[in-house]
Amino acid sequence: MTKSTLLEQLNWRYATKKMDPSKAVPQEKVDTIVEAIRMTPTSSGTQPFELLVVTNPEKLAEIQKVAWNQAQITDGSHLLVFAAWDNYTEERIDDVTKLMTEERGSLPLMDEYYKNLKATYVPRDAETNYAHAARQAYIALGIALVAAAEQEVDCTPMEGFDPAKVDEILGLRERGLRSVILLPLGYRDTSGDWLLPMKKVRKSKDTIVTLVE
Amino acid sequence: MTKSTLLEQLNWRYATKKMDPSKAVPQEKVDTIVEAIRMTPTSSGTQPFELLVVTNPEKLAEIQKVAWNQAQITDGSHLLVFAAWDNYTEERIDDVTKLMTEERGSLPLMDEYYKNLKATYVPRDAETNYAHAARQAYIALGIALVAAAEQEVDCTPMEGFDPAKVDEILGLRERGLRSVILLPLGYRDTSGDWLLPMKKVRKSKDTIVTLVE
Repeated sequence: MTKSTLLEQLNWRYATKKMDPSKAVPQEKVDTIVEAIRMTPTSSGTQPFELLVVTNPEKLAEIQKVAWNQAQITDGSHLLVFAAWDNYTEERIDDVTKLMTEERGSLPLMDEYYKNLKATYVPRDAETNYAHAARQAYIALGIALVAAAEQEVDCTPMEGFDPAKVDEILGLRERGLRSVILLPLGYRDTSGDWLLPMKKVRKSKDTIVTLVE
Repeated sequence: MTKSTLLEQLNWRYATKKMDPSKAVPQEKVDTIVEAIRMTPTSSGTQPFELLVVTNPEKLAEIQKVAWNQAQITDGSHLLVFAAWDNYTEERIDDVTKLMTEERGSLPLMDEYYKNLKATYVPRDAETNYAHAARQAYIALGIALVAAAEQEVDCTPMEGFDPAKVDEILGLRERGLRSVILLPLGYRDTSGDWLLPMKKVRKSKDTIVTLVE
């Protein structure tokens, strides 16, 4: 294996169970993490999700109530909410094509590509399209986990919450969005986190990798 | 924003359209990328996917045929295939619990946690469980994209293929796996890739980020 800062970062990070509420993540670090999420590559470049950066204490308390009361939501200083498009629509794909044209100029092959994409996506049922959009948000989650570790910021990816309730609290459905992942950012409470001293557990390479040579 | 090597890597990488078939990725770089995928955090630590590293020329040619003939599959030197569990089963979750116990010792709270997980996951329909497992593979995809960029290796994430056919070619269904993403690794053909000189396009921060302060 080659030397890799990424591997060091992946070994440093862990799903922080107890954050220190007295330490806030500096804004410039949050900005870097958000920028990494913005730069995430997605299927056909559609970027079919949005990001909410929640610091409002009342909203955080409301979200915590519908997320198994997980302490990191209010002990962390910023809560990232990944919200996927509830559907692919003609308008949404046209907006992507328009941006591409603005940035790269008019390209007939590109227009053709997005025309075909619309013909495939738009008639599909909303659940299929939402499921596809949600997967793209998970690419961004992977990159956000690395971004946080690079900034020596702790975070805890959370699927354990009531998405419909979070959508309501943040007014997502009326914007055509559905919450898929919560990611509180903060700093580990080094004395109070039971998970911190535990060994990181991963399956062996033999268990999960097959060579087809 | 803080200084970030990750952001430089995200700007360097792109979905390579033309790879140079004369250049192979060194094994130690492939190993590092595979290790980053192995270290990917997943929901409840289940790591519900496997990775196939395909270098066999006949298999690559067969896969290419069911993947819109995309040239990178055979021009690249290694094809990574992310294959998610087709379902969560009692046995699979028991294996995770067993590994945790081996590594961390017996913890009643952990046993309880995985007992509850089984009670939730196992009765759910296979499609719901597969969809959840596939999302975890997308976290690994995000991390793999960063790992490749760190190693200055090019790659092209692909959803455009016939999963049932790829499953058949690689014998995945009988192993309880379903292919979700292809990721050829190789090196960009700097003179032959139409996408390389194009500007990278991403939506503005204003478009995709909402502050809830």
